[in-house]
Amino acid sequence: MALQDVRSFAAGRWIGSDQSAREIRSAVTGEVMARAGNATLDMDEMLDYARGQGGPALRAMTFHARARMLKALAQHLAEHKQRLYDISFATGATQKDHLIDIDGGIGTVFVFASKGRREMPDDTVYVDGQIEQLSRGGTFLGQHICTSLRGVAVHINAFNFPVWGMLEKLAPTLLAGVPAIVKPATASCYVAELAVQIMLESKILPEGALQLVSGSTGDLLDRLTVQDVVSFTGSARTALALRSAAPLLERAVRFVAEQDSLNASILGPDARPGTPEFDLFIREVTREMTAKAGQKCTAIRRIITPEETVAPVIEALRDRLSKVRIGDPSDSATGMGALVSAEQRMDVLEKAAQIETEAERVFGDPEDFEIHGEAAQSGAFVPPMLFHCARPDMAQHVHEVEVFGPVSTIMPYRDLDHATQLANKGQGSLVASIITRDPKVARAVALGAGAFHGRLYFNNRDSMAESTGHGSPLPHMVHGGPGRAGGGEELGGVRGVMHYMQRTAVQGSPDILSAITSRWVPGATEITHEDHPFTRSFDDLELGETFRTAAREIMLEDIEQFARFTGDTFYAHMDDAAAKRNPFFPGRVAHGYLILSFAAGLFVQPDEGPVLANTGLDTLRFLKPVEPGDSIRVSLSVKQKTPRNDDYGEVRWHVAVANQDGDPVASYDLLTMNAYGAGTGP
Amino acid sequence: MALQDVRSFAAGRWIGSDQSAREIRSAVTGEVMARAGNATLDMDEMLDYARGQGGPALRAMTFHARARMLKALAQHLAEHKQRLYDISFATGATQKDHLIDIDGGIGTVFVFASKGRREMPDDTVYVDGQIEQLSRGGTFLGQHICTSLRGVAVHINAFNFPVWGMLEKLAPTLLAGVPAIVKPATASCYVAELAVQIMLESKILPEGALQLVSGSTGDLLDRLTVQDVVSFTGSARTALALRSAAPLLERAVRFVAEQDSLNASILGPDARPGTPEFDLFIREVTREMTAKAGQKCTAIRRIITPEETVAPVIEALRDRLSKVRIGDPSDSATGMGALVSAEQRMDVLEKAAQIETEAERVFGDPEDFEIHGEAAQSGAFVPPMLFHCARPDMAQHVHEVEVFGPVSTIMPYRDLDHATQLANKGQGSLVASIITRDPKVARAVALGAGAFHGRLYFNNRDSMAESTGHGSPLPHMVHGGPGRAGGGEELGGVRGVMHYMQRTAVQGSPDILSAITSRWVPGATEITHEDHPFTRSFDDLELGETFRTAAREIMLEDIEQFARFTGDTFYAHMDDAAAKRNPFFPGRVAHGYLILSFAAGLFVQPDEGPVLANTGLDTLRFLKPVEPGDSIRVSLSVKQKTPRNDDYGEVRWHVAVANQDGDPVASYDLLTMNAYGAGTGP
Repeated sequence: MALQDVRSFAAGRWIGSDQSAREIRSAVTGEVMARAGNATLDMDEMLDYARGQGGPALRAMTFHARARMLKALAQHLAEHKQRLYDISFATGATQKDHLIDIDGGIGTVFVFASKGRREMPDDTVYVDGQIEQLSRGGTFLGQHICTSLRGVAVHINAFNFPVWGMLEKLAPTLLAGVPAIVKPATASCYVAELAVQIMLESKILPEGALQLVSGSTGDLLDRLTVQDVVSFTGSARTALALRSAAPLLERAVRFVAEQDSLNASILGPDARPGTPEFDLFIREVTREMTAKAGQKCTAIRRIITPEETVAPVIEALRDRLSKVRIGDPSDSATGMGALVSAEQRMDVLEKAAQIETEAERVFGDPEDFEIHGEAAQSGAFVPPMLFHCARPDMAQHVHEVEVFGPVSTIMPYRDLDHATQLANKGQGSLVASIITRDPKVARAVALGAGAFHGRLYFNNRDSMAESTGHGSPLPHMVHGGPGRAGGGEELGGVRGVMHYMQRTAVQGSPDILSAITSRWVPGATEITHEDHPFTRSFDDLELGETFRTAAREIMLEDIEQFARFTGDTFYAHMDDAAAKRNPFFPGRVAHGYLILSFAAGLFVQPDEGPVLANTGLDTLRFLKPVEPGDSIRVSLSVKQKTPRNDDYGEVRWHVAVANQDGDPVASYDLLTMNAYGAGTGP
Repeated sequence: MALQDVRSFAAGRWIGSDQSAREIRSAVTGEVMARAGNATLDMDEMLDYARGQGGPALRAMTFHARARMLKALAQHLAEHKQRLYDISFATGATQKDHLIDIDGGIGTVFVFASKGRREMPDDTVYVDGQIEQLSRGGTFLGQHICTSLRGVAVHINAFNFPVWGMLEKLAPTLLAGVPAIVKPATASCYVAELAVQIMLESKILPEGALQLVSGSTGDLLDRLTVQDVVSFTGSARTALALRSAAPLLERAVRFVAEQDSLNASILGPDARPGTPEFDLFIREVTREMTAKAGQKCTAIRRIITPEETVAPVIEALRDRLSKVRIGDPSDSATGMGALVSAEQRMDVLEKAAQIETEAERVFGDPEDFEIHGEAAQSGAFVPPMLFHCARPDMAQHVHEVEVFGPVSTIMPYRDLDHATQLANKGQGSLVASIITRDPKVARAVALGAGAFHGRLYFNNRDSMAESTGHGSPLPHMVHGGPGRAGGGEELGGVRGVMHYMQRTAVQGSPDILSAITSRWVPGATEITHEDHPFTRSFDDLELGETFRTAAREIMLEDIEQFARFTGDTFYAHMDDAAAKRNPFFPGRVAHGYLILSFAAGLFVQPDEGPVLANTGLDTLRFLKPVEPGDSIRVSLSVKQKTPRNDDYGEVRWHVAVANQDGDPVASYDLLTMNAYGAGTGP
């Protein structure tokens, strides 16, 4: 078999390895299969390519345009995923593991594409939070915005998930409008190289948006500035070396780390043997121990069970684990493949030995287990190993040493406080799970352990059919954890995009804030057209375009009729004496829904036109009671426009209802779907 | 005058200085006035006191209880502020400066008290963002929560604002439920000591919530863990030393820094001499140069003006600055007081000399200026100094050297891109201001400079009467900046509280999430009572308590009548053919407001009772059209309860409207104010 030359993609060119390259061996056969590394890569040129071409091209696109780009990228990857499957067995991964890495990675890109369209504006400025009223008269306001960093994101990835690990960083980075330089771990960099090649072949990304360093990054990090980000996944040791680098510290370069984690799973006190929760617990632990041969940063390293349940848990796990077939990952009968390399195997065995000084091995013997598949006999295999630590309060290694393989330690707890204490002894983790159906247990663990864990995964009979697994980071939810886990955050939907953007507090007049945010701010200049805004297409409508209605008097008979018609005879509308006893009302008042309905009657232009539907309403507040004899008038202003598909977009209208004295009585955002103009689109 | 012994407050005791103490001199007279420092402080004992007593006591309180505590604390400080004024003149500050430091600090506490009540729940778990739908069937959901860190916040403060600088960190920390150990800068620590004494005298804070280290913190930082936070304000040099400390890096201890910043102010191309904007610019620059003798981290260090406006700006500033009376700060005629110490004066003069290698001094001579007040002749005074840097693209010091005094450099720009480039050459700042009335200029600067600045302050004739000033961090808005400014964030309302809490992604069933968040989640168990929920007091209502109504058929005549009555004759309700041409509707459909109104008619219990008013409605979405002949029924569930005052609280109801097939047609949150039960309260 010919040696694969794993290339880098630098400043627009594919560059092969040089003499400095390192050899890479197959995890399964132990044979040298590839080489990667080139000491002559020009880091300045790569940075210029990213900052000078990739950044400006991405920043010129709106979030929606970037989201469409991500969707196309995910579709293209999905079309070519068989190529990634084929090459990935050599990392020791089974087809099931490929689903986590490859399909999981592509799925993550799809979710960011969707969130970019649904939760971000069709603009280059992201609006964070609400307008802050910094002045009585409303002429000086505050608004937080986020804009794209103007540098480059350097992604330093772990070996275990060469595809997911790359895409889960790349999707939010590109959505943020920031170019990336990706540095995969060498042991599995040939998979990342293929994924990058597939993405670049698609021509979906602009020039400079994505580069790849196979091998060492040289002095890349020393060249980073305030506008760059380093996002790292890997060991605590490497993370510490990186985060201690003087150039990064001096320039306060952003550093996001996701590193070691001694994740725990707690069996709830209610989840006795014989309950669906007990069986679920055994399934979750088994899966987390064996999937990807335990090389998951989220795998369960500590199994925390009630004292009296230790024995049945060990028994059930032994039974399950003994059925796991170990061997050639390309054999579909294989349940668990190999570790990524002989070095990793050595590392796992050494660290397991450290655990063994504090805990008894109750399952799995690395000296005596069967490897299925003839070609796999020299591969980096270990069996699942279960330890039992009877005195976890006295132990240290079981809470501190991350054995990055199919290794876990069971430990007993006395009561829930004790269980929480044990979980927290990891000094910060990515995830802890609790298998319980008792809401009180859930609340107690959330309060007692939340501050130590980036994610808390609860599961029981109610959710198990649809649950996603203790070890699965989801693009919607934050991935990362405090302390030992690195103190970083990734993913979490739009939150993950913000790691590549700068939040800025903006202060100014309503007109200034409207211009910056592409959202009309109440108090800003109103634009008046002769035509009713309901007759103007999505494209033609301007921010701030305002329609002011005539007045309508609300009479007691209106209130009576509304009550009879709708059935809403609440005392504040019907009984003057009772209404007067109420702290809010001067006497009988109009229904809130009457005000809303009459307001619509005042502002609606009834003819068929570009307005297709009223789809909803946000943040309605009734500000002052409307009494019989009051009259209302409405002001309707275009606040924001968001394309939704090829035919129409959403218009957010600011609606202000005032009484005859000009006092506001109600305000809300109204949502409509409006057709684009003839022959135009988003 | 007797030497003041500045004490520390450690583990519940006031402790005076020892032989290790440093002398502190008056900024005004130069005389030794106080001593501070004690090398025998027991840091372990202080940490135990905070973690063992302060933390648990604060975490037992809800956000609302902590907010009430903050309000009481602010009121108490306000009652005693004259004592703080009196002692603060010795720092060189004028009465106007005291308003920034002392009143500004107290005002910040009031804002956090208010935000704690209005924007956070009456609970110990903060809910961050929306429910994430992680499953089709809705049995497995995601929600981010934030819980209090279980350690201590170490606040290391700058000398310039001993009160504001302490309170702006303390308010969000206490609201987060985290105890603080405050370390003021020695030069003005006697003011901080008095403020702490006033706070502790009030007995408003629980034991262990607040401690004070006057002098050195010894090895305190080496003892911190994953649950602690260091929040630093001061020089970049000290920040770098702290952030490089191995124990902090190894344990990923949170470190928030706010350090040097070469803040810029840009005069917009539209703000020609003679415009209100030009005069405003001159006023802002003058104030930022002279307030607190320029010892403000947000002061304007770089004045960026159009090439052709440099001369008139210099002329106008000279005119203004020449009228600033320098001298004894306790004299009400004084416009600018002293720097905090002779050392600071030396530092300012040295750094000004560096600026002078690249720029010409066009105003202010440190060798020749008048100091008013006989006692002040040996004080740490310097005059305002204005420099002109004609070639700012070639210059380095003017963009990098923070002269922490009344010193600023004017530099010309060719066009707006150039202005933005110059502003960004600070490599990260706390704030940049732009005086412009042109919305296009505002948007261009926001996009071009946003990523380099923590705050962008826009001002013009429309906002100037109510604007708060370039240099004023507001509690509502984020304070901090990237790169040189430290890469940290403080304040920003609830965002600032989150620096002392841990965000955790929680996954589980609706019942589990409801229990953890104290918010009923759709899909969770519904509770049914015999009595209508509108007849039950705020206290009695349970989360998940659900009322299901009878059905009501919607007839064509209802739609007709609603249209006639309200005036809303939109074609989708009135014209079957036109409605059919619409992509959303099968034919004529009911008005959204008809559905809302009829829904209220179905669920309202009309009698006088604990429900006082419908105050609003959130997130209404119409999910499916309602056609003539359809019938609707409503389910109303208690989602969240929030006390609002002594008499009543807000109930948030989840309302789901379904048709005869059980398909959802509308959903929204309804807000009501409900009276507490007899004799009870929040």
